[in-house]
Amino acid sequence: MNERLEQQVRFTMELDKLKLVLRRNTLGDSSRFENSAEHSWHLAVMAAILVEYANGPIDLGRVIQMVLVHDIVEIDAGDTFAYDEVGILDQAARESLAADRLFALLPPDQTILIRGLWEEFEARDTEDARFAVALDRFQPLLQNIAAAGGSWRAHAVSLEMVRARCVAIGEGSAALGAYVETLIADAVSRGMIAVPGIAAP
Amino acid sequence: MNERLEQQVRFTMELDKLKLVLRRNTLGDSSRFENSAEHSWHLAVMAAILVEYANGPIDLGRVIQMVLVHDIVEIDAGDTFAYDEVGILDQAARESLAADRLFALLPPDQTILIRGLWEEFEARDTEDARFAVALDRFQPLLQNIAAAGGSWRAHAVSLEMVRARCVAIGEGSAALGAYVETLIADAVSRGMIAVPGIAAP
Repeated sequence: MNERLEQQVRFTMELDKLKLVLRRNTLGDSSRFENSAEHSWHLAVMAAILVEYANGPIDLGRVIQMVLVHDIVEIDAGDTFAYDEVGILDQAARESLAADRLFALLPPDQTILIRGLWEEFEARDTEDARFAVALDRFQPLLQNIAAAGGSWRAHAVSLEMVRARCVAIGEGSAALGAYVETLIADAVSRGMIAVPGIAAP
Repeated sequence: MNERLEQQVRFTMELDKLKLVLRRNTLGDSSRFENSAEHSWHLAVMAAILVEYANGPIDLGRVIQMVLVHDIVEIDAGDTFAYDEVGILDQAARESLAADRLFALLPPDQTILIRGLWEEFEARDTEDARFAVALDRFQPLLQNIAAAGGSWRAHAVSLEMVRARCVAIGEGSAALGAYVETLIADAVSRGMIAVPGIAAP
């Protein structure tokens, strides 16, 4: 058997492990935590549906591939909760090591291609990456709203923290950024996000 | 708020339910059943990695979008096991009704686009669709091998049934079709697939 195909199949089978990486947010019905594979699928479909709201001209095919691979490093590095101030300190180092191992399972030309997409996502220096990151921030917000507060309530995440996390939405899509402001205001009014000095209803 | 964006967000939130649709095969580590959302993600990454093996010229961006949406109808219609001879009888009718409801959540132009991708996948009349279907048959085979027989053993699926199911792999990719023959032979030799008249080792 062809060594190249063998490498590609080994990588394909390794991908299965991303289904076991749990995020901090739940599904909309709160029945269980969401995993990073199904989260990535959700972002990819959203990219196709919401592409018209990107700030600049983007290449939808590249954005979709970027969100499909953006969390693969979590197979080794685990999911780091957005509001985990300790975990975030060494997140980049852990994920870089994970990328070294995981993407090297592929033939060299594809290592470069897939790692390049992941690095572009992380750097947020292109319109494609900024739109991909915007979706990655928008989707868990919708999940938390569907779950009546979800990980915001479970971890007492403040309005200030949610707002800081959502700045990147406007950087990729001003239209989605403006819309999210209305969603956040509504979530606050329904007690889903803690506001210091204001008791939850 | 913009009625168009509202429709798109409603559809996005409905997609979450595909994560609750369980397939008959498990993850590679046999810890739980796979769901249709993470399965769709797996196919989409595979499309990017294995595109060079497609039989004809294909549009990778379309293939990826096709596999991303190919199971959305299961939100209403449920997953029909490939070897369920009764369920398959009314599968098309159930899925068509599901498509009517689910894709109509989108603005009309996107209803046409996404339903078109799903219908193209189902019809298998284009190279794009044949390659997408090939991946949809190849991935559960890899899952069953990783799970030491998985749903083949659980449901006593015969070699003849597995082979019949895998014909579509060669129709989309002769190279993957040939490779799968070697995987099946190996799976038989390891007792993962039942062969009438031959006791499992």
